[in-house]
Order: sequence, then structure tokens, then C-alpha cells
Amino acid sequence: MGHSRGKIETALRVELEDAGDLSEHYTPGVAEVAKRVAEDPEALRRETVRANSVAIVSDGSALLGLGDQGPAAALPVMEGKAALLKRFADVDAWPVCPRSREPDDLVRTVRDLATSFGTINLEDIAAPRCFEVERRLRDELDVPVFHDDQHGTAVVVLAALHNALSLTEREPAGTSVVISGAGAAGSAIARLLLVAGYRAEGIVVCDSGGALHPGRDLDGEKKWLAEHTNTGHRDGRLSEVLDGADVFIGVSAGGLLEGGDLAGMARRAIVFALANPDPEVDPRVAAGHAEIVATGRGDHPNQINNVLVFPGMFRGLLDAGATTVTGDILLAAAHALAEAVGDGLSADRIVPSVFDEDLVPALAAAVAKAA
Amino acid sequence: MGHSRGKIETALRVELEDAGDLSEHYTPGVAEVAKRVAEDPEALRRETVRANSVAIVSDGSALLGLGDQGPAAALPVMEGKAALLKRFADVDAWPVCPRSREPDDLVRTVRDLATSFGTINLEDIAAPRCFEVERRLRDELDVPVFHDDQHGTAVVVLAALHNALSLTEREPAGTSVVISGAGAAGSAIARLLLVAGYRAEGIVVCDSGGALHPGRDLDGEKKWLAEHTNTGHRDGRLSEVLDGADVFIGVSAGGLLEGGDLAGMARRAIVFALANPDPEVDPRVAAGHAEIVATGRGDHPNQINNVLVFPGMFRGLLDAGATTVTGDILLAAAHALAEAVGDGLSADRIVPSVFDEDLVPALAAAVAKAA
Repeated sequence: MGHSRGKIETALRVELEDAGDLSEHYTPGVAEVAKRVAEDPEALRRETVRANSVAIVSDGSALLGLGDQGPAAALPVMEGKAALLKRFADVDAWPVCPRSREPDDLVRTVRDLATSFGTINLEDIAAPRCFEVERRLRDELDVPVFHDDQHGTAVVVLAALHNALSLTEREPAGTSVVISGAGAAGSAIARLLLVAGYRAEGIVVCDSGGALHPGRDLDGEKKWLAEHTNTGHRDGRLSEVLDGADVFIGVSAGGLLEGGDLAGMARRAIVFALANPDPEVDPRVAAGHAEIVATGRGDHPNQINNVLVFPGMFRGLLDAGATTVTGDILLAAAHALAEAVGDGLSADRIVPSVFDEDLVPALAAAVAKAA
Repeated sequence: MGHSRGKIETALRVELEDAGDLSEHYTPGVAEVAKRVAEDPEALRRETVRANSVAIVSDGSALLGLGDQGPAAALPVMEGKAALLKRFADVDAWPVCPRSREPDDLVRTVRDLATSFGTINLEDIAAPRCFEVERRLRDELDVPVFHDDQHGTAVVVLAALHNALSLTEREPAGTSVVISGAGAAGSAIARLLLVAGYRAEGIVVCDSGGALHPGRDLDGEKKWLAEHTNTGHRDGRLSEVLDGADVFIGVSAGGLLEGGDLAGMARRAIVFALANPDPEVDPRVAAGHAEIVATGRGDHPNQINNVLVFPGMFRGLLDAGATTVTGDILLAAAHALAEAVGDGLSADRIVPSVFDEDLVPALAAAVAKAA
């Protein structure tokens, strides 16, 4: 396969061809930059690698669909992401795969990265640890912390849903959504839907025990979801609460559903079966019951993948010198992403392609404006 | 000055031009590499960025000659070093400047970097903390830990001294050396001189209180030096113990010495006044008392700078898949560096230039052979 030495390397942004170059860019010249940076945080942002960099941080505890594989296995995946960031957004990313597992230790390590890296991308860290780590880092750091499994997924799903609602003539406030999966992705999708104007009553999040509601014995993020969604307190298994739903969003595990489970959904139903590599329901089967079907796979129309989001997101955060990732930024990104489909919008094309040249600049501009 | 966005960036080692490339290098293709790497540590070394990478780690607590400037000020300096590693040795280095100061925290952070980075370079960390951090990392990690202020300095000084001894017709065992400075550099130079065959009696290390010997109240590294060098127990200030010495090595502070302090040195004396930017003694003054004079500056002959060492050192460590840095590796590097001067050896050219094209390959080969 030829992944020898990995997918990225470093490159020079300065000339180092003679002793004069060395004096300017190393000793003694660099001492001047060091003094400037020590006195002026803006110089740190402008004149160092921090200006354009992302640390892609994963402990490999929830790697792709493979489960807990550890930091070594995570490295090639995070490298791939770093390569995409360079290719699509000219962002300089480096993978860091900590051996630490305790939230205290992960937080400390990422804090130690936040001088050299202007933004932090958390990735494939198991729930519920990922929630605590992300929350504490947001509180402590002055650089944006983006958890792709939460925020990237939520943005691309919201964008796709925005276009799907438009095609099926719905409004967010009147749309009922069932989410399968109460981990990082499901939680973030529910939270962003609330910010985007979907009603709490119309959002039902299911874990393997069925719909989350205040009558269940839950803690942490699931408790929050039980209290802030499904305010009609619907109870039951996934296939039961799907009855009458307008939208199914699966971010859980392959093969959960049969066609019959979708038969009771509303007219012009929308099914996003995003588990990878095996969707929650076979998309060909789903097409018999839904007007719009999307998956996470590239061999089916409507591939909903975070790669549509994170290059433009980081480009925008870095361009704006953002210090945090807000709900407004995520909403703006989702709207820009939805709009980037343009005239090509159809039931088989509710999201753009990452190779659309206008996508990253449009998303970056929207993010920078909101930041 | 135009250091905008820093001195390095990332670059792609793979093509990402169509959906097929994306499938190969990101999902789902990368899952295969992840599985291979999880099962086989050799695959981690071969197929990821770890194969060719260095983390350049500094908390900025002893930055250049500027003292404690903190991690932000350290960043442009470490970037400069990363640029040199790429330019001279095709090594992919990234600067990491932790906010942590406690040895426990620094050790934990560096351990968390050691999956992504095949080698660790510690830099400009204040003594005595640097000794503890380095020792613990060597014990805990399976990647080489090189502390440039210790090992890089010791190697280039030993190489220069080797050639200076040859020009002044001396042998290590019969040569007396006075070292000014008992921090990271002075300590490592003394230790490497012992490994290289210089006699313990002939090495006197001075701090601001004068010569280290067992009669002084010392601890940590200084205590070790007092017990393992200066076995003749010479006492006195720097200028006093210089009387009769063959070699002065200054790794301390500018302007410590006058010409008169050197007047009592042996015939054909050797003076390395390496404090930057101001040497311990004016090199023009020193030339009146010594046959060979070297400084750390580029505007005087015989610039003794770690840049002669670290590119070839890391190239060799990575090429060999080394897991630690041994005394033998440092010795081999010093000998290769000394030999790289070749026929050009003279009192004004005891070390090669970093722009000598043969230098890095020769040093890397010697390091890889010893590793």
C-alpha cells in the first residue's frame, strides 16, 4: 500500500541556504522573535506555527468503528485527517496520540499542546470521557477546541437535514427526529438541533435501552439529554418511537433496523443511516420507505462525512483567530455547508462534494464571520 | 522580518485528488493500516509519521541566553530548529512548548507525545529540572531522548577538542580541562570527556562558587560531578584553577575572564569561550594567550554550535530505529564530526561547516552504526 513514513511531512517556509539565513532564522536572529512573542500574544499568533496549526488528538479509545484500539492504531487515522486538512484547507495539522487515559492527564497534555497549536481537534475518544475532557479544555484554554465526533458530525448532519427538510417541505419546528446513539455524535446532534430551532418535544434520542426520558436511571450527558429532549416523555424501543417520526438519524451500530421498522414513519420520511462501515439499515431497503436516504459510505448517494466540515471549520477558526467554538459558529457552518450544494440540490444530492472548490472557502468565511 | 505563520508547515506525502484517494488514505482504507499498526509495533515505526519525526520539547525555562522566558517565547526558537532538521537532514520535527513546569507533568506530556514522534529532543529546560526529566524519560520511553543542551553540546565540544588536541599534539589522558558552567552543558561535557578517555583528575568543573570538589556542600548533578571529576580536589575560583590548564571550556556567562586570567595557562593553550552572544572572554584577547580559540558566534572562526550535531544525530537515530541514546552513540557522533573537517583542519577550522554536504550523512551513518 506504500504508506511508508506516513502521509504527511514538514516543509520549510523560509530559506536556509547560507550562514546569513541561519543567523536570521536560528541564532541569533530568532532571539528577536522570541522577545517579541514573550511580550505580545498577538505576535505568537502571527509569527509562529501556531498561526496555522491544529493538534489532532486521539487516545484511540473509540477508533472509527473499531472500538478501543489504543493510541498507536489511532496514529495513521489522525495522520490521514492531517493530510486532508492540508489538502483541502492549507491547514498544518499534526497527530498526537496520548497514552494517557485519565481525563486529568489528557487535559494536562492538551493544555501543554496549546502553545504550539492554534486549534485543538479531539477525535475518537470514548464517551463519556470525551465530554469531560472537552468541557474542561474549553474552560481552560484560549484556543478553540473542536471535538469532531460531536461538532463535525452535528454540523454535517444539520446541513444535510436542512436540505432534506427543504426538499420534503418541512420546517424544523414541526419536524420530529429520532436519533439512534447517545454517544458523542448523537448527543451533539441533539444539542445542535435544539440550537437550530427544532423543538425539544420533537427530538427523541435512543440508546441500546430505548428512548431517553427522565423516568430512566441515567447520569452525565444522557441525563442531560433525557431532561432537555423528548419532553413528551415517549418511552419504548427504537423501532417503537420511530412510529410516526419524520426523520431517523443513526449514529450507532450497523444492522439495527429492518425495513418493517421504517414502515410506520411519516410520509416523505428522511433516513440518515450513518454507522460505518455498515449502516443501521440497508439503504436500498430504506429507500422503499423514505424519500431521502443518506449513509456514511462513499458508494451510495448522499455520503454524510465530517470531511465536509473540518477543513473549512479549521480554516475559518484560524483565519478569525477564534478562541472558542460556539453554537453560533456551528450553526453558521451548517448553513454554509447546506447552501454550498447550490442548484444541484436533489434527493440524491443533499450535501456537496469535498472536491467542490467553493466549499471550503464558503464554510471558512461563514465560520470566521460568526467567530 | 516576515516570519509570518512561522518557519515550517506540513506537506502531503500522498495524493488526495479524487474519491479513490480519499478511500485509500482516509476512511475506509486507513482502518487497514490502523489494524496492522495495532498488532505490529514495527508497522507503527514503518508506516506512520513516527518513522521520521522528532518532537522538539521546551518549556522555555532556560531559553537561549535569555533565561526563563516561558513556552510562548520558546516556540519560534524551536520552530527554527525544526526548520534546520528538515533542511539539513530531511527529518520531520514539530515544536511542542508545554506550559507544565513540574517534572511529573513534563514527563507525562512527553510520554504522551512518544507514540506520534519517533524521537524526542529536549531543549532549553532549566537545570536541575532538566536532569530529572531526561533521566525519567530515558527510563520510561522506548524512543530515544536527546537533550540538546547536554548531548548536542557535549558532542560538538568533544569533536572540536579532539581536533584541537591533534593540532597541539596532545592526548586526552594527559590533558587538563577546566569547564566553566555546571549546568546542562557543563555537566554533559564533563561526563562525555570521562567516557572519551580524559582522566577524572584532569577535569575541573567550576560554577559561580569556583571549582566543584567533595569538600563543598552540593547536591544532585553537581554532587555527582564533585565526586567524579577533579579527583585531585583542586579548590579555588575559576581564574585560579585555570593556572596551568591546557584547555578552557566556557559554557556559562559572557565576560567572566580577562586576558590576564588566561596568562597562566599551559603552552599552546586551547580556549573555547562558548557563551552566547557574549563569550566568556573576548576571542581577540584570548588569541594572545591561546593557540586555538573557538566561540559560539558565527562572526569568528571556529563556531562551535549544536547545529553541527543534531541534524545528523536524529537522521541516524531514526534510520537505525534506535530506542535510546547511549554514550557510545555520542562518542561515535563526535568522532564522525571531528573527521568531517578532513584536510581542511587548521587552528582556524577545527569543526566543519553545517553546509558541508558530507557532514550529515557521515554523522548519521556513524550514529546508526553505533545504535
